[in-house]
Amino acid sequence: MKKFAVLGYGTVGSGVVQLFHKNRAQIEEKAGSKMELAYILDLREFPDSPYADKFVKSIDAILADKEITVVAECMGGIEPAFSYLKQCLQHEISVVTSNKELIAQKGAELLAEAKAHSCNCFFEASVGGAIPIIRPLHRCLAANNISAIYGILNGTTNYILNKMLTDGMRFEEALEKAQKHGYAEREPSADVDGHDACRKICILSSLAFGKHVYPESVYTEGIRNISLEDAAAADELDGAVKLIASVTKLENGKILPAVMPMFVPHENLISRVDGVFNCVEVCGDAIDRAYFTGRGAGKMPTASAVMGDVIEAAKHHKTVFSQFWVDAGTQDFIAGIDELESGLFIRFEAAQDVETLQAKLSEILNEIGHENAALDVIENACVIPDKLNSQERKEILEKLNSIGIKPAHWMPVMDA
Amino acid sequence: MKKFAVLGYGTVGSGVVQLFHKNRAQIEEKAGSKMELAYILDLREFPDSPYADKFVKSIDAILADKEITVVAECMGGIEPAFSYLKQCLQHEISVVTSNKELIAQKGAELLAEAKAHSCNCFFEASVGGAIPIIRPLHRCLAANNISAIYGILNGTTNYILNKMLTDGMRFEEALEKAQKHGYAEREPSADVDGHDACRKICILSSLAFGKHVYPESVYTEGIRNISLEDAAAADELDGAVKLIASVTKLENGKILPAVMPMFVPHENLISRVDGVFNCVEVCGDAIDRAYFTGRGAGKMPTASAVMGDVIEAAKHHKTVFSQFWVDAGTQDFIAGIDELESGLFIRFEAAQDVETLQAKLSEILNEIGHENAALDVIENACVIPDKLNSQERKEILEKLNSIGIKPAHWMPVMDA
Repeated sequence: MKKFAVLGYGTVGSGVVQLFHKNRAQIEEKAGSKMELAYILDLREFPDSPYADKFVKSIDAILADKEITVVAECMGGIEPAFSYLKQCLQHEISVVTSNKELIAQKGAELLAEAKAHSCNCFFEASVGGAIPIIRPLHRCLAANNISAIYGILNGTTNYILNKMLTDGMRFEEALEKAQKHGYAEREPSADVDGHDACRKICILSSLAFGKHVYPESVYTEGIRNISLEDAAAADELDGAVKLIASVTKLENGKILPAVMPMFVPHENLISRVDGVFNCVEVCGDAIDRAYFTGRGAGKMPTASAVMGDVIEAAKHHKTVFSQFWVDAGTQDFIAGIDELESGLFIRFEAAQDVETLQAKLSEILNEIGHENAALDVIENACVIPDKLNSQERKEILEKLNSIGIKPAHWMPVMDA
Repeated sequence: MKKFAVLGYGTVGSGVVQLFHKNRAQIEEKAGSKMELAYILDLREFPDSPYADKFVKSIDAILADKEITVVAECMGGIEPAFSYLKQCLQHEISVVTSNKELIAQKGAELLAEAKAHSCNCFFEASVGGAIPIIRPLHRCLAANNISAIYGILNGTTNYILNKMLTDGMRFEEALEKAQKHGYAEREPSADVDGHDACRKICILSSLAFGKHVYPESVYTEGIRNISLEDAAAADELDGAVKLIASVTKLENGKILPAVMPMFVPHENLISRVDGVFNCVEVCGDAIDRAYFTGRGAGKMPTASAVMGDVIEAAKHHKTVFSQFWVDAGTQDFIAGIDELESGLFIRFEAAQDVETLQAKLSEILNEIGHENAALDVIENACVIPDKLNSQERKEILEKLNSIGIKPAHWMPVMDA
């Protein structure tokens, strides 16, 4: 018999409880033993819940029970989640969490604590919701030298960008629709300003490169400035605007994590991932590239990831799977956004004659040393797929401006 | 120090050796200890290889070395691979294999042997090449009740179908091109007749539903009958023809594994997976659906999957991760292809008037009790998305034939 507890009975926590009871027989078979949900920690009262007798209001009740092997944290926020999980680990209880904010800020500390007490700290649900990505990246792809990760890591913004294109909606309208459907919060900043995606790319970066990347170190730009015209022009240029959370390994050994809207060419599968779905592309020296796609949020998808971790933690209690990363004591290994090399998507304020635009752009590209660079032009936008550094991108935009072809908006082209 | 051996120095085996030496530092870090490639088993001579001193010609040398923790089998075929791996397991050596034929035929036996000797039998490389699918399906999605799996599991046929569409090639021409590029064997039957995909869906079916599914029990149809016209008509109807290996759980409790060309609507990401890439879609009650996409074959992609397994087997030697499935003693739990319910894609011998076609089809659908069924019609083909049983599909085809609208080719519509 393996006993476990759930911390927090909100959307995810109640989903975990529900999923456990729905698929209990199968879950116990996979775990290799009977399992019991022994406690649910929540300060609120749930007198009518079928699990009313499981509720406790203090972590102490859980810590005092020597039979608890795993605790699943679904509370969100840093405190008291962090203190609770630290205490659990110190009591040799493995922990599982869906809390991306917590792992992005305190991952290295929790992992060290888990290692010190020979138990596990799992967080599959913290990135990509239902999508298995943490375990595949860390274990299945362990033999690869990872060169880059690109992802749609926030379903809300992907839904909004998608609606703008398919229904011809402006950002504000699409946001309202997302709020109406429950895909976006009333206070949408964490989603639309990129903070949620930022936390997730911090976790993936730390995992892939072994050193903790903190959210403050990551260039983060949301989608508020993306217009309907950008979305339509990208579509006409055989691509899509996506909020891409990425991390790339630079030649100087640094890594460059970032969150920003990018033009993604249709050749890349990521451009085809629509609605609230998430997608993570991992590039490695042996695999070339692999994509993981699925529901990035929601009650049952997230519960699936949490419960998968609970099963593994219960089954292999005391087998430490790894210390995934450490706090390097500095963030010097992280490059600034000015070190980004990328292609360039530009939308212009006014429609131009396509042939003239083509000629002028070719001339400018020649001037900055990108002779005969590929170029895709429509009357109000263009894509330059060649990798350009920030100085070159700036020069192109300035030169265009100086000859009266005024850029209205530009963004990097996703490479890969 | 963990010592391991590689059996077979062909494409995959030499890839494993190469990848281990290329990324050795990182691999050892992930494995948590120094690792040594101690032996390579191959009957051929490789006097000029930098690893010439590692070669042995008999499994006995490996079995006799008490320090060997893992053996990676990359020989292919049933024998002697099966005997070798069985002996390894009996010597408490964990085994890793990329051999889909072996696992599809002997998986239950090897897994039982591994369990009996408290060691592991891993086979991540046997399905989907570089794509992590075995571990994610078995572990990350462990809490899900799986309802269906759909996949492009053979890159060669996907390349051929893709070429037919994009370059307007007939099957024979596209096959020749695939052979020229080394994507298809000189004897292409294993690929184009679906046997390779069949072995892989056997493995996924066994893993998802716990009972060994043997290749002989699976309806298998290849792509030889797919014409350029089918590919073009599917495209016009907003979909693609793909060789789909699938398994679905039926309401009567049976499972229905099958390999056959299907019409995949563009709303499904699988239709966007082109060239030699593979894709697996897993449908479960908690996750809804998740997609895993990547290179399904090739030296380094396959080596990546093998090496990932070797790392885990070395790191967690003697931690048995699971007995994945058993031989049920019967194949009665497998439904026949006549139990397939699906939509219907039909291409006609001659072009028709679209309005007449639409009217006639609606009439037929009404007659068989599918009033007001959705219908997508072009002049030489149609898609009926409604789920139809085999009797209904047969009736539709017969009725069309009887009124002079002769079906040239039909295939099921992939649902999901």
